[in-house]
Amino acid sequence: MSAAPAAPAASSAPVVVQKYGGTSVGDVERLQRVARRIADTHRAGNRVLAVVSAMGDTTDDLVGMAAAVNGRPPQRELDILLTSGERIAMSLLAMAVEALGVPARSFTGSQAGIITDAVHGKARIVDVTPQRVRDALDEGRVVIVAGFQGVSRDTKDITTLGRGGSDTTAVAMAAALDADVCEIHTDVDGVYTADPRLVPDARKLDRLSFEEMLELAAQGAKVLQVRSVEFGRNHGVRIHVRSSFNGSEGTWIVPQEDMVEDAIISGVAHDTSEAKVTVVGVPDRPGVAAGLFSALAGATINVDMIVQNVSSAGRTDISFTVPRGEVDEARELLAPRLGEIGAEDLVVDPAVAKVSLVGAGMKTHPGVAARMFTALSAAGVNIQMISTSTIRVSVVVADADVATAVRAVHDEFALAGDAVVAEQGAG
Amino acid sequence: MSAAPAAPAASSAPVVVQKYGGTSVGDVERLQRVARRIADTHRAGNRVLAVVSAMGDTTDDLVGMAAAVNGRPPQRELDILLTSGERIAMSLLAMAVEALGVPARSFTGSQAGIITDAVHGKARIVDVTPQRVRDALDEGRVVIVAGFQGVSRDTKDITTLGRGGSDTTAVAMAAALDADVCEIHTDVDGVYTADPRLVPDARKLDRLSFEEMLELAAQGAKVLQVRSVEFGRNHGVRIHVRSSFNGSEGTWIVPQEDMVEDAIISGVAHDTSEAKVTVVGVPDRPGVAAGLFSALAGATINVDMIVQNVSSAGRTDISFTVPRGEVDEARELLAPRLGEIGAEDLVVDPAVAKVSLVGAGMKTHPGVAARMFTALSAAGVNIQMISTSTIRVSVVVADADVATAVRAVHDEFALAGDAVVAEQGAG
Repeated sequence: MSAAPAAPAASSAPVVVQKYGGTSVGDVERLQRVARRIADTHRAGNRVLAVVSAMGDTTDDLVGMAAAVNGRPPQRELDILLTSGERIAMSLLAMAVEALGVPARSFTGSQAGIITDAVHGKARIVDVTPQRVRDALDEGRVVIVAGFQGVSRDTKDITTLGRGGSDTTAVAMAAALDADVCEIHTDVDGVYTADPRLVPDARKLDRLSFEEMLELAAQGAKVLQVRSVEFGRNHGVRIHVRSSFNGSEGTWIVPQEDMVEDAIISGVAHDTSEAKVTVVGVPDRPGVAAGLFSALAGATINVDMIVQNVSSAGRTDISFTVPRGEVDEARELLAPRLGEIGAEDLVVDPAVAKVSLVGAGMKTHPGVAARMFTALSAAGVNIQMISTSTIRVSVVVADADVATAVRAVHDEFALAGDAVVAEQGAG
Repeated sequence: MSAAPAAPAASSAPVVVQKYGGTSVGDVERLQRVARRIADTHRAGNRVLAVVSAMGDTTDDLVGMAAAVNGRPPQRELDILLTSGERIAMSLLAMAVEALGVPARSFTGSQAGIITDAVHGKARIVDVTPQRVRDALDEGRVVIVAGFQGVSRDTKDITTLGRGGSDTTAVAMAAALDADVCEIHTDVDGVYTADPRLVPDARKLDRLSFEEMLELAAQGAKVLQVRSVEFGRNHGVRIHVRSSFNGSEGTWIVPQEDMVEDAIISGVAHDTSEAKVTVVGVPDRPGVAAGLFSALAGATINVDMIVQNVSSAGRTDISFTVPRGEVDEARELLAPRLGEIGAEDLVVDPAVAKVSLVGAGMKTHPGVAARMFTALSAAGVNIQMISTSTIRVSVVVADADVATAVRAVHDEFALAGDAVVAEQGAG
């Protein structure tokens, strides 16, 4: 039995997109709490589209089942399997919203018009055709969309957008519907100056630029998927990261021009999900690096940091980081080519961590990198690799040093809750 | 990593459709056994399409979750939820087949071209457009299709075909692909003269006509969904019901003309899933029954047996049976109309069972019904309702009498394993 559709919301009513992660819908009670939140937003006069992830550990459980039947499950089949989790969550959430007397409809990524390329496991959204979703909103319904998934334009196969892909689903739907806000409901209160589990006095940020959020997310801050931030920046989506457990304001991600003043440093991110690969004794001649990284790109392995030192005696070492889950594939790909390119050895070190300092004010305040390296040295942390952008300094350190390193840098730049950071933009 | 496609099977290679029920894929080990069976059939030179149900109790678990969030979950959302079970099973099965070195692809009902009407929960297949499936078979792949589901032509929504719907998916795919055989792999060895749990000496039938199978399935034999038999008869699909646990021959369902000789009686079916509804004291005038049953049909409630007695004093009673799950809806629908049609009362009895005797030879052997009623009477079983077709006699009895009734009838017609039934068609 469907609840009778409410009077259609005026097409001038604000469109609010809300994303709820797996923890927020971890069990039936939490799912019902999310349903109440959605119904309240609808009753407050908004047109609501909610994007939902799989409940709790569903995705991990499904990955475990796949591993039990096939050590290397075909990616196409894995994508079909994993998207079941969001289907279950979305239909249950629609039922829970209907139980509150608010008409609701759920749509898979494909039904909602999330069109992607055909790269299974980490597909990119290439188009959004939200006609069915728009019709349902016009009928006065709450719309629930399965996160993390889409359909390939070329193969018509189901694809997934990678870990955290539901964020990107939400931002893409918000862009396509010209939503007033895209709320990312999560299990923390917003974006912090550092991971509060490592740095207990980390401070919640009221406001961040897209560029800063992009760097923080790319360098390991798990609060938002990188692509969702890119999508938001490119389409001017207002993103609000907030807790799904209370009503307080979280962190707004806004265009650079909306920042009142730049903070020198916005936060410290860390990432323990990568491994370091070093190709030792590479002949120092043109084309070697290109050959290496073209091969990795061809296998769609995400290479992150790349460092090449000056050569000695015509040879150099090239180091780079890749996701730990892809390091075996990288090794298998490169090992047979060592002879061909004249390299001496291939060394893999999975026990590394990356610590990054991000802040838009860095551009106009020289000496930030030097202060960071000094602080790490004083804390006894050895730096293995360095890479920088205009608003970021990243270092690779030993895995075991990560907490010490994050705290040392956080302290050095006085990011703690009770510190006054003169340049921090007003909330 | 996908296994490399094998050399395409010759397009003249036999097409074998296999259906595996939820028990056959109840856990990872059983799923792997099914994968081996599929791979063996492929390696024997066949083109194989396997239809799979949800693993074990998945569907019941999902129904339970739905009930926890909404006492009356919207059917559209329930269908989306339930189809997740087959998606999980189909992708895991494809992975398991690939792990054996045989290339495989899984397809949802929608992807396999199962087009239905929009009646959620018990949709009917209106067309099959199996181009993607045919392409995959032509590429030399095993094809795995999710049973029980399709997509509505009108609403583009996901639909389900009702309990046992995977049988119909299999027969429909077999018809669309002009398959050489449609094997229904199940947890019993074939179709029996009665349920072996009630009648331990029941005998496996080697061969049955579509008409007999249709009557047996319609009267409660759970081995095949009724619609699958209809579909098979209408499209000339050879159906082989066999055990998924061993390689022995099961029961073939064949056209009447392929039966060497008709058995008087093929088997006894029973059904405890229905409830009896009696509308008491109905005025005996035209249009009353039409009004009653049009209302029930409008709500897509499946009315099975209908009995109306001769009237006395211008009034009569109309009794009918409906699925127990729909009896509350039937009561809610009819109760407010009693006054309007001038009836006196509405009585519902859920504690009934239907016992049916089926056999194509009945047409030419009079007296079968009389023998059945005598046997029941001798066993002390009271008959509440009677209905017959040319090849079937059904009675409604008290739920508590069902085992006694089935055994009495089975014995009367000497259907047991060691009995010689002269008219039984050769296997």
